[in-house]
Amino acid sequence: MGKCKIGIVGFGTVGTGIYKILRSEFDSHPILNEIEIVKIAVKDVNKKREIAIDNNLLVDNPIELIDDPSIDVIVEVMGGIDIAKDIIMKSLRAGKSVVTANKAVIARYGSEIYEAAAQKGVYVLSEAAVCGGIPIIEPLKRSLKSNHIKKMVGIINGTTNFILSKMTNEKADYMETLKLAQKLGYAEFDPTADVEGHDAADKILILSELAFGGKIERDSIITEGISKINLKDIEYANKLGFEIKLLALAERYPINSDDSLPLNIWVAPSLIPKSHPLATVEGVNNALLIDAAPLGEIMLYGPGAGSGPTAASVVSDILNLHATSIKNNNTLDPLLAFDFWRNCHIIDSSQITKKNYLRIICIDSPGVIGKIGDIFGNYDVSIESIVQLDASEDGAEIVVITHEVSNGNFEKSKEEINALNEVKLIASQLSCI
Amino acid sequence: MGKCKIGIVGFGTVGTGIYKILRSEFDSHPILNEIEIVKIAVKDVNKKREIAIDNNLLVDNPIELIDDPSIDVIVEVMGGIDIAKDIIMKSLRAGKSVVTANKAVIARYGSEIYEAAAQKGVYVLSEAAVCGGIPIIEPLKRSLKSNHIKKMVGIINGTTNFILSKMTNEKADYMETLKLAQKLGYAEFDPTADVEGHDAADKILILSELAFGGKIERDSIITEGISKINLKDIEYANKLGFEIKLLALAERYPINSDDSLPLNIWVAPSLIPKSHPLATVEGVNNALLIDAAPLGEIMLYGPGAGSGPTAASVVSDILNLHATSIKNNNTLDPLLAFDFWRNCHIIDSSQITKKNYLRIICIDSPGVIGKIGDIFGNYDVSIESIVQLDASEDGAEIVVITHEVSNGNFEKSKEEINALNEVKLIASQLSCI
Repeated sequence: MGKCKIGIVGFGTVGTGIYKILRSEFDSHPILNEIEIVKIAVKDVNKKREIAIDNNLLVDNPIELIDDPSIDVIVEVMGGIDIAKDIIMKSLRAGKSVVTANKAVIARYGSEIYEAAAQKGVYVLSEAAVCGGIPIIEPLKRSLKSNHIKKMVGIINGTTNFILSKMTNEKADYMETLKLAQKLGYAEFDPTADVEGHDAADKILILSELAFGGKIERDSIITEGISKINLKDIEYANKLGFEIKLLALAERYPINSDDSLPLNIWVAPSLIPKSHPLATVEGVNNALLIDAAPLGEIMLYGPGAGSGPTAASVVSDILNLHATSIKNNNTLDPLLAFDFWRNCHIIDSSQITKKNYLRIICIDSPGVIGKIGDIFGNYDVSIESIVQLDASEDGAEIVVITHEVSNGNFEKSKEEINALNEVKLIASQLSCI
Repeated sequence: MGKCKIGIVGFGTVGTGIYKILRSEFDSHPILNEIEIVKIAVKDVNKKREIAIDNNLLVDNPIELIDDPSIDVIVEVMGGIDIAKDIIMKSLRAGKSVVTANKAVIARYGSEIYEAAAQKGVYVLSEAAVCGGIPIIEPLKRSLKSNHIKKMVGIINGTTNFILSKMTNEKADYMETLKLAQKLGYAEFDPTADVEGHDAADKILILSELAFGGKIERDSIITEGISKINLKDIEYANKLGFEIKLLALAERYPINSDDSLPLNIWVAPSLIPKSHPLATVEGVNNALLIDAAPLGEIMLYGPGAGSGPTAASVVSDILNLHATSIKNNNTLDPLLAFDFWRNCHIIDSSQITKKNYLRIICIDSPGVIGKIGDIFGNYDVSIESIVQLDASEDGAEIVVITHEVSNGNFEKSKEEINALNEVKLIASQLSCI
């Protein structure tokens, strides 16, 4: 059986993790010995590195890897967007399969990349792009393929989960916790992609395209981060039996006549009942709940990032390519390869239904809860609880949790409530599951 | 692309579930249309059935399916042991791949079955045999293959988890809860295999052979069920911050000179800290925690049984066979196929280390806790807590929880404690994680 010869582009934490797995004395499955690193492309071949590495492997031009006819698979772990996309596309056009951990590229250019792979009869695998070491993409492609996926909801960004866990457990301030996360290496110097939810939106897009089978516009995903989360909301949520987590959700709605599958996809800080399986996911861990028919509800849980877990996913993808290529007779494995098989579109947020949390600051007057209740009632917005949680000379804080209601109606009733004389401010609005 | 033609042996709840998936108007992936049911072997072709089914498909002799050259894959969902094993072996010898949900047959005759499949260049897939609808076997074969599996621990029997959840939440009696489970269809008329832990032992054996790569003797797995669990132990465990669950555990120990991998595998009712991810697994759900390097700890959670989940796993296995066979050029996919690649053995229970819970009934005398503590100390058994929980005229109840200690030393100290004049009875002994 021939070896699988790979070229690695990028040698940061993930690249180093891959090297360690393939060169280790670990007592792992013998098939790992069939993977051979032919070349590694780095920015600076003379840089001092964390681990001892065979310097003959290093080159400073990734094109050398693509042009090398002995290399079967290009492993892109350099990060970034434009150059990484270019390398992926050139590799595919050269007839080489690609393994990548790059969620930003796949989320933005997935359809173009999948098409280039299909044209050349090669694969693009990206298990490491979503939730680090947790097997999610391959189960969606294979083990869950007999099912009709109804809904996915999860905690798929470790940085924000670390920050929210810390704020909850230690009543820690947002900015201080963010600084700590940066110091610990859990947050980037520019934390925007994580804390504003863009990273989670990239990931839920990739998962939704796989689960629902159609191309999704990255810009159409409504995305809200955690930078405006107030300690008061965390305190009130806890008091009422909820945790606050940054959730990503994707669910299908019934198909209309136009034959395109309507989807509801969003990323937002949300209340979760403490008894819910996702509520116990702490720190930098990730978890995804998948509701499918006839399967029911399963949850996949584990480390969402880090050198080891991410590298493990990359190497498993390489092994899968190798195992499939042994049988190479110029036909693709239809489960491992990926093709869109339908049209999807994201529906307008006024058409979705969801549960809501609203914190209202108002004058402490006996009639105000009744008035708020009346307005919701007029718009058919059914309420699970309405509680006055804090009252002082400055006013009262009222927290409303609705049942799952029409988002259009909820927004209209919110406007009317905001216009009440007694209401000073709608201080915050969060999703609930 | 040709269709994948299957013959189904058995048409109980799982068989019916498979038929529903393949004949449904579900909006699932189009590759499902490529599976064609050619024949179904049943005991009585004239029996009235829950669903309308094309009677031309039914035959009463499974050998007809094996002899039919148009059938590519035999799906064994009849249950039982001897006849099912015979059908699986005959199918493999006839050069047909097999999909089975039969954990009892795979746990007992796995090595014989895997060998027959390898000889004929066909596959045996059994995702549905372990934890119903949760993808576990395929992730172990593929997505986790880059890792070195260190330990697996899980709740892998739904019946006993339903009974223990009910006993915990409602202080319900064991026999009454078992009867309820039988009424609800969660327990068999003869519940022995479930309540005595044999079903969980079958499953942890199958998972261990996959994860560690060697044949394991079914009889060597120390197995203890839940039939002797006392409400008092549940109450005390809860008081001290634990849940009691029936756990299956498998872990590797360091390799000695003899080159065979030492394993510690057991099934036993165990205390789990309430903050542990497995503690929240309620009712008939299952979950498996896998600790691997460099991945870290992941958990797979979901419905452990039932017609829909089990059938979904069977159909996904069929799809995987179909996708692989499209590329058929007489070589097997080395990840999907399974071969032992090392020797393993189960080490003697005196050589393992574990945490323990002990409930001791003794005379209410001030010196007794000291005496018990001294004996443990003499044997190097380190104690996490020792608590007197109930005292009456009849005596006192003392609960000891140890750290992870040598099991041999623990057993010796237990004998000495039992011989103390103050000790009336060692009422129960449980594992802890």
